[in-house]
Amino acid sequence: MRYLKLTLSYDGTHYAGWQIQDGQPTLQGTLQHVLKRITGVSERIIASGRTDAGVHAWGQVASWKTGCLLDAAVLLRAINAYLPRDMRLLACQDAHEGFHALRDALSKRYRYVIQDARIHDVFDRGYCWFIPTSLDEGSMQRAARSLVGEHDFAAYQTAGSARRSTVRTVYAIDVARQHGEHGSRVVIEIEANGFLYNMVRNIVGTLVEIGRHRQDEQWPKRVLVAGDRRLAGMTAPAHGLYLLRVHYAGD
Amino acid sequence: MRYLKLTLSYDGTHYAGWQIQDGQPTLQGTLQHVLKRITGVSERIIASGRTDAGVHAWGQVASWKTGCLLDAAVLLRAINAYLPRDMRLLACQDAHEGFHALRDALSKRYRYVIQDARIHDVFDRGYCWFIPTSLDEGSMQRAARSLVGEHDFAAYQTAGSARRSTVRTVYAIDVARQHGEHGSRVVIEIEANGFLYNMVRNIVGTLVEIGRHRQDEQWPKRVLVAGDRRLAGMTAPAHGLYLLRVHYAGD
Repeated sequence: MRYLKLTLSYDGTHYAGWQIQDGQPTLQGTLQHVLKRITGVSERIIASGRTDAGVHAWGQVASWKTGCLLDAAVLLRAINAYLPRDMRLLACQDAHEGFHALRDALSKRYRYVIQDARIHDVFDRGYCWFIPTSLDEGSMQRAARSLVGEHDFAAYQTAGSARRSTVRTVYAIDVARQHGEHGSRVVIEIEANGFLYNMVRNIVGTLVEIGRHRQDEQWPKRVLVAGDRRLAGMTAPAHGLYLLRVHYAGD
Repeated sequence: MRYLKLTLSYDGTHYAGWQIQDGQPTLQGTLQHVLKRITGVSERIIASGRTDAGVHAWGQVASWKTGCLLDAAVLLRAINAYLPRDMRLLACQDAHEGFHALRDALSKRYRYVIQDARIHDVFDRGYCWFIPTSLDEGSMQRAARSLVGEHDFAAYQTAGSARRSTVRTVYAIDVARQHGEHGSRVVIEIEANGFLYNMVRNIVGTLVEIGRHRQDEQWPKRVLVAGDRRLAGMTAPAHGLYLLRVHYAGD
């Protein structure tokens, strides 16, 4: 068998998330359908993680174990020819024997984009969280520091997921204001060795409370230590979230 | 009566253009409907120019002659509260007696955005023209120079419009490559005292032929002098075009 590493970008707006579900458009289902059209065989694609409904990706990685012998460059073009326009295969590379996009991932980096302004940008309305009040990004950055490191993130997990351990290592949380021609954005990037269910969106919802000066900068740490999801901020909406990169050994 | 200057941004994707048409969603129709909900009176809004189906705007300007006495800041909020999310009023200002957005416009500036790359950006697919081959933007910029100035632009007008004169003054054509995090774009901006039907899109379609090295840099000038639309390049698609700014005396 052959192991391929697929790097994907997608606009999650019209999908019920990565994972196949009956009767719903999903990213996994769409990709597997295209691969079957090319190879004639139904094969399961494994992603580095399942993005939720409405979440976008700049660099999702998936692994594909296949008997297909087409050249990787030919496959890249063929797959893109069949994929809908809101999904693109950015790279198709032969990987080492046994490559598994989920198990082999060393870390993932997510980006969350917020527009804090009086009037929302019509072109970005499906691609960021619009908050009609100015955020203090310096305060958000300082508050985020207490979450970096190895911690039990149970307080930042939405119930309903069944992970054995809720301990994760966050390598970085970067909060920055990016200035563009059409206003600025508060951009939050979080890199960790793994994420609990809704962890990025719950951290973002919590940091936004600090950006609005509704909570002090020590609050995220207190929530973390208390371990109680009900104390944290709201879950930020899906359409501001992007899976940016996944790191593997040898990258 | 009172004269108001409205500055609008819109995502033209789901509209049949600015001008009211029966049974079709239009920008003018949508705006006039909202104003009627606020004032109770049907009043006609005049734009600086009618954008075509699918064309976007960052700074369309419209004039509104009304008896409505609401404060301009209150109107701004009220109108935005009723407008759909793909349309925003960016500014609402009292203007001089008789202000007329079409007749009083001194110049307009359009922007056209092209992504020339191997794989299109999924997030920008409705907002630029995707060309799967690299363009020579330097050659396009040099070729564009011959179109700057006062000329008869009949060759760059799509038939079907009934303008008395086809002479216009182009103040600037700027072709630049903009580098972003997710690839680069070739951005063409054209400023003129007025535009013939599809003039920007026909100039862009012509410049792209030069960018692809299918025509030499003197070709746009020869087309201009020949005055024959059939000699020019294709009409670039609507979804890469933005009305950027409209200039008035005293701006």
